[in-house]
Amino acid sequence: MAADTVDRAVLEDLAAASRILVDQGVFDAAGHVSMRHPERPDRFLMSRSLAPELVTADDIMEFTLDCAPCGHPSTPLGASEPKPFIERFLHGGIYQKRADVIAVAHGHSAAVIPFGLVNTPMRATYHNAAFLAAGVPVFDIRDRFGATDIVISSAERGAALADALGDKAVLLLRAHGFVAVAPDLPSAVFRAIFTEVSARVQLQAATLGGPMATLDEEEGRKADAINLATVGRSWELWKKRVM
Amino acid sequence: MAADTVDRAVLEDLAAASRILVDQGVFDAAGHVSMRHPERPDRFLMSRSLAPELVTADDIMEFTLDCAPCGHPSTPLGASEPKPFIERFLHGGIYQKRADVIAVAHGHSAAVIPFGLVNTPMRATYHNAAFLAAGVPVFDIRDRFGATDIVISSAERGAALADALGDKAVLLLRAHGFVAVAPDLPSAVFRAIFTEVSARVQLQAATLGGPMATLDEEEGRKADAINLATVGRSWELWKKRVM
Amino acid sequence: MAADTVDRAVLEDLAAASRILVDQGVFDAAGHVSMRHPERPDRFLMSRSLAPELVTADDIMEFTLDCAPCGHPSTPLGASEPKPFIERFLHGGIYQKRADVIAVAHGHSAAVIPFGLVNTPMRATYHNAAFLAAGVPVFDIRDRFGATDIVISSAERGAALADALGDKAVLLLRAHGFVAVAPDLPSAVFRAIFTEVSARVQLQAATLGGPMATLDEEEGRKADAINLATVGRSWELWKKRVM
Amino acid sequence: MAADTVDRAVLEDLAAASRILVDQGVFDAAGHVSMRHPERPDRFLMSRSLAPELVTADDIMEFTLDCAPCGHPSTPLGASEPKPFIERFLHGGIYQKRADVIAVAHGHSAAVIPFGLVNTPMRATYHNAAFLAAGVPVFDIRDRFGATDIVISSAERGAALADALGDKAVLLLRAHGFVAVAPDLPSAVFRAIFTEVSARVQLQAATLGGPMATLDEEEGRKADAINLATVGRSWELWKKRVM
Repeated sequence: MAADTVDRAVLEDLAAASRILVDQGVFDAAGHVSMRHPERPDRFLMSRSLAPELVTADDIMEFTLDCAPCGHPSTPLGASEPKPFIERFLHGGIYQKRADVIAVAHGHSAAVIPFGLVNTPMRATYHNAAFLAAGVPVFDIRDRFGATDIVISSAERGAALADALGDKAVLLLRAHGFVAVAPDLPSAVFRAIFTEVSARVQLQAATLGGPMATLDEEEGRKADAINLATVGRSWELWKKRVM
Repeated sequence: MAADTVDRAVLEDLAAASRILVDQGVFDAAGHVSMRHPERPDRFLMSRSLAPELVTADDIMEFTLDCAPCGHPSTPLGASEPKPFIERFLHGGIYQKRADVIAVAHGHSAAVIPFGLVNTPMRATYHNAAFLAAGVPVFDIRDRFGATDIVISSAERGAALADALGDKAVLLLRAHGFVAVAPDLPSAVFRAIFTEVSARVQLQAATLGGPMATLDEEEGRKADAINLATVGRSWELWKKRVM
Repeated sequence: MAADTVDRAVLEDLAAASRILVDQGVFDAAGHVSMRHPERPDRFLMSRSLAPELVTADDIMEFTLDCAPCGHPSTPLGASEPKPFIERFLHGGIYQKRADVIAVAHGHSAAVIPFGLVNTPMRATYHNAAFLAAGVPVFDIRDRFGATDIVISSAERGAALADALGDKAVLLLRAHGFVAVAPDLPSAVFRAIFTEVSARVQLQAATLGGPMATLDEEEGRKADAINLATVGRSWELWKKRVM
Repeated sequence: MAADTVDRAVLEDLAAASRILVDQGVFDAAGHVSMRHPERPDRFLMSRSLAPELVTADDIMEFTLDCAPCGHPSTPLGASEPKPFIERFLHGGIYQKRADVIAVAHGHSAAVIPFGLVNTPMRATYHNAAFLAAGVPVFDIRDRFGATDIVISSAERGAALADALGDKAVLLLRAHGFVAVAPDLPSAVFRAIFTEVSARVQLQAATLGGPMATLDEEEGRKADAINLATVGRSWELWKKRVM
């Protein structure tokens, strides 16, 4: 399998997405974002194993949905094969099960992790987090795999995670982090950012006590449609900050 | 309707207000601030649809109080019409009902949102937040409009919001954000900033438990008068940081 | 009354103290720090009314302990009189009652304010906050002056505040902020910073619940002696950051 | 005793570790990190007494495990002896008792201190904090030494602290801070950083209430092995930020 040619601007956007999620405080020295190949839905693009702050277009690799590396989409065949992320199986597993998903972001931001540890469900605290209103499942790797190293490092683990995600936009990984998926790259970045912000808001609201008038499912669907339509305004700003 | 000429310094102050609220952590990639036209009280000025960090004097548009665009106040007639913010109706609704209001700021800062979700009223935790002591109402868009996309995108929604604001300085929007109004632009910025800071203080005080000796109404009125008289010292510093 | 000559390095240190407290997140657009005149204990030095981030040696004024301005200690007589801070009475009141106090800092940092609103006493959560172990009184301006604008704007208010401070290192002002005093300028800055940090630690510890093994009075006295002796290492670093 | 020659790159890494822990928000104006001498396991390397943000390779001193200074490992004999940290006894005590420990970091980061004050044990909230799953003991200096100044300023105090650490990776010091140890320098830095982050996560999770599905011991061991094997990716990024 050889890599296909991909428009350089696409690779640059994907690399920018990685740096944006660092700049916005969602990624730290770890975290990765991927996108489905624009012309081959049976392939996806993702950085080689690298701190997300350092990713550039030249670091993007191409993979089959089984997570086999196909080289660099922008580099001549024969160039030395870089080391991929072990957790590419998290991405591949989702692309296999969810034809509607075009981009996937995975990180370990601090405000999100508590909701994977306790029984309180994550909720959509405001319109920017509307995509959470449909529900946020939690994946506990112990349920299928017992005591592990927590890493999504195999096709089996990736498939189990994709099962747990179901048709939702965000999944929490117990004692690990979150996954956000979307029908385009800017929206996956938007959802990763506002998963974190909404988690912070909910943690603060919880200290006040009492019932919480978060978005219901219908409000969530309607507000999410607006967000998807207007994400460009935020995306342009975020990109500008990391270029 | 054509735009009127406005002193360039006024437009620059309004644009600076937008960037100040980003710099001070109140606005993120969204949020907008407006002011009543200095010579025509039946018009108001507000940026075109743009991330607040990027707003300059050239982005300011003029609107009737019904929110019809009248072009740029600093650009020759005939220049291409930019895209206004959908939520200008939030601003217009308030200018129509509150002759005393000269400036309006609207954002979604994280510490404020919890108080629109739960039953705990927002209080004036210290002198800088004195304008909160008169009470902070919450506008729940469901009460009049049922399940919506949350956006204040029509004259009807703007009017309902202005009704909920009444004669107060700050209004919370359930699952959305806040509005701060003031008799001048620097004071609207000041109030937006200290609404956020006071919310943070109240959230922290709540974790300690027990009654809270916040400002009462009379203290609030007296301290607010001092704040309005001395806001210039803060305003000059904040502006300097974003010029 | 004319200003006395003061070594320029002293004025620069006092101005640096103001900027350090901004840089360390204790002061925002407000807050002020003063010191007793090095050669005339019946005078004190303090910036003119100015955002603390902007203070330089040229902004320092000299005052009697009654808070009458005596001009600039580094500027020829006859130079135009700048506007002093209204709240200089907070400083003057303390210098009158506490011969041991050489420097005073006053600000409104967010983590400290909750402890002036509720009944939970502030405690010394770790060795850097040792000066809190002797106890932190709260001054409620209502007790003597009824409903006010909260500002310490008169000799009477300054004296009442100094009474409430007693022989302690830190005083909280209800719905307002804090005062930290020390036997030298670097230590007043140190105490202002670690009053804020310790408040944050205590707020976080409170969310865990149960008894708190903070420093007792004897540990506080012993650890404070070490802090006073070694403050230079922190002071040099902090100063370097704002020069 | 004279200092041995040490590869300059080793000294630079140790100095970088100090600055990294400032950059990552673990150290403030205080905190220190040390490492065992690469060729002489009966010696260790540690900065002279200096704010950690300012440490360079030239500031590194060499000590016997009894904490006697042996001069600079990169400077000719006879150069003037700098002032060591008083708390080198904390480091020396650990190197004496734990042959497996190659690096030690000690700081006072705000989120960690609460867990040394209350009865809630610190837990491993996610895979990056796996090294906490084996348990985090608390050292209360009062138990052996009564009311002190809290400082680990003698061989006796250092030995008692090392006893309390036992075979664990992290120890909390009541009303003081934490110690993190590791089999190499990058891992000690990693552990110091994620002790702080995990403490923040646990504090936030605690506000939600209910049981917490943190890592168990077996998961912790497995995830820690991965962390130790992959720490280089984070270390290179962190170092790049402070060079």
